[in-house]
This record gives sequence, structure tokens and C-alpha cells, in this order.
Amino acid sequence: MNTVYGFSPSGNCHKVRLLLEQLGRPYRWIETNSAVGETRTPEYLVKNPNGKVPMLETEDGRVLVESNAILHWLAQGTPYWPEDSWQQAQALRWMFFEQYSHEPYIAVARFISGWTPMGSTRRADLPMLRERGHAALAVMERHLVEHDWFTGPHYGIADIALHAYTHVAPHGGILLDAYPATRGWIARVEATPGFVPMTEPDAEAASRIAQSS
Amino acid sequence: MNTVYGFSPSGNCHKVRLLLEQLGRPYRWIETNSAVGETRTPEYLVKNPNGKVPMLETEDGRVLVESNAILHWLAQGTPYWPEDSWQQAQALRWMFFEQYSHEPYIAVARFISGWTPMGSTRRADLPMLRERGHAALAVMERHLVEHDWFTGPHYGIADIALHAYTHVAPHGGILLDAYPATRGWIARVEATPGFVPMTEPDAEAASRIAQSS
Repeated sequence: MNTVYGFSPSGNCHKVRLLLEQLGRPYRWIETNSAVGETRTPEYLVKNPNGKVPMLETEDGRVLVESNAILHWLAQGTPYWPEDSWQQAQALRWMFFEQYSHEPYIAVARFISGWTPMGSTRRADLPMLRERGHAALAVMERHLVEHDWFTGPHYGIADIALHAYTHVAPHGGILLDAYPATRGWIARVEATPGFVPMTEPDAEAASRIAQSS
Repeated sequence: MNTVYGFSPSGNCHKVRLLLEQLGRPYRWIETNSAVGETRTPEYLVKNPNGKVPMLETEDGRVLVESNAILHWLAQGTPYWPEDSWQQAQALRWMFFEQYSHEPYIAVARFISGWTPMGSTRRADLPMLRERGHAALAVMERHLVEHDWFTGPHYGIADIALHAYTHVAPHGGILLDAYPATRGWIARVEATPGFVPMTEPDAEAASRIAQSS
């Protein structure tokens, strides 16, 4: 059985949980709170020198990191990864877009809003992060006006990767009102068989989020 | 024949050129200077709403973007992409690392040093970018102390992806003196069959780089 080291309110970690649940594969989850340094202990850094979650460990002790690489490995031979190489490349295109042009703005705006003190100097970055987050959403919206999914003709791991932080973008003050096709796609993702919702922010994070918008 | 829209001094664009050269596949290169807005014209944005290079266009007009997704597509069925799914996942792990934890610091420090005016306010970011760039190099060095390559047992697209900006990290003031295993790997990459060097910065960029370190 695989073990996943993950922080439940993290979208990157939730990606792995969602796919494992939809695949019906048993796994062990070890809650690892990156916000309080649990990915920076000497024991953790031996396994992942980059000090991040999620991390997947196989039963025989091999380690895989980077959420989207974990999705790729788990999805091989399943309907969540397309067979055609052009469609595979398009799925990866969206997964690289997610990590480069989407997550660093939408996820970081959410993290700063919910998981840093109200007086944090990082909050000065929020207007820039929100602006760039909207730019990413506009690119997604343009795709979704003409396509149902990001993975190809069917739901799959590029949709899982992009759903993770898109559906909670409002936590970072990035509202989805202007993106009807994206809201429709979120609803389709959440109606797929075996879908499980992401863990809600705890009361402290939720309170900060409410004060940040 | 494929067409590549690329800016020659860009590492992300050079990745695509290097793989095409090593594969011996003919291609057409359309020089597209992102530093002066050539990826933000209405014609370009129709093809790539994210407004970035590189972009690959097939002979029948299909478009693929994101440098590492292009590498993946071109490398299918060649020795530059491993056959084993675990090795594939590790290669992708390093390619996602490159786009999330490496390029945003090492490539951006280089871009600011060479391609923004000497008085640019963005230069205030250089100390932070250099610090995080060194953190990425330390993760790579740790891997290279024990492994020859990033793609698995052989040279391949994860090495191409990471070589692009690592070998020019000093342009951004991020020196490689402390990373002997990384310098050895750069030499191995540059000795692979069909290797072509990246285009040097032009005189204006080179002059700024010399003044920035």
C-alpha cells in the first residue's frame, strides 16, 4: 500500500487523495503540516530534500514527489490518463500551466489569506497575486468555452490538477463570478464518480479568509 | 514539418531546439521576441492565449505550448523518454521541479539582469531570487552526487529541461562554484551527441549582465 504525506487543506495534496479515492486504491495518509515546519525536519528532508508535500512512498520505500508527477504515475493504465500522445501532451500542457501560471498566484493568494497572520508583510503581495490569478482564470475560461475537460475528451488528471486551487480561488479573494464556463466545469468535476471534497480550512484559517477579502 | 515560435536566448525555447537537433528532425524556427511584446499580438494570442514562447505548431495547424509538454510530445518513442513508468514519473518530477522551484528564480534573475533597464525596480528582487535559486541548485546537487542524470539511467528530456537555465545561472548572479556535481553534469550534457549551445545574449544584454553581478 502507498503512503501519502500530505497537508489536508493543501490543494496540491488533495489532488493525490482525490485520484486515489476515484481509483479505489487503498492508501495510508500521514498528515504533515507544512505551515508549521513538518516538511523541514531532518527525517523529512532525507526523503524529500525540496521540503514540500505531497510525497508518495511506496511499500518498498521508493519516494515520488511533485503532485502532478504523482498523478501521472498513479494514472498510468487508467481512464484518467489519455492513450493518445497528442492528448497526453495537451494534458501535461495544462498541468505545467497549473504549476507555473496558476498555482503560484491562486494558491499563494489563498495561503497568505488563510495561513499567515493578519499583519503579515506578505499581504502586500495580494493585489498582484489576484491580478495574475485572474489572468490564469481567463486562459482557462477561454478553453472551457469550447471544451468540457482539460485532459482531452474525458475527465482526468489535468482536471484534477486544475480543480484543486481553482474551486477555492475565492479563499484568496479571487472571485469566479466572471467565469461561467469555469464554474460549469467545477460542477462537472464535482459530479464525477468517487469525487471527494477537499478538507475545509480550520476555524482560524476560515476567520482570516473572511477578514481578507 | 513542425514550426517553433521561440526567442533564441530563452532557455525554455532552447529546450525545444536542442531536442529537435538531437532527434535530427527538421523544423522551422520563427524568432519571436517576448521581451518586446511579440507574444502579445492579437494574432499570437489566438494561438496561445497565455502569451508565451515556445509554441509548437504542427504542419496541420495544431498548437502545443509549455516547453516541457513540448519536450514530452517530441520525445515519445525515442531514447530521450524512459519506458518504465516509475522512471517516467521521476523525469516528470524533475520537470515540474524545474518549472516551479528552479525557473521562477534562476531564469527570472537572469532575465532581470540582462533584459531589464539598469534602473528597473525589478532589480530589488535579485537578492531573493538568487537565494531561492541557490536552494534549487542545492537540491539538484544532492541528486547529482549519486546519479548521472535526471531522466533515469540515461540522458533525456528532464536533463534538457534542467540544463536550459542551470548552465546560464551565473548570468543572473547565481554562481555554480559550490556545485561540483552539477558542473560535472553540465559537461556531460554538453558532450551528448548532437548537442547545440544556446544563443548568447546580445551585446546590450551581455553588458547589463556584466554590470549586474
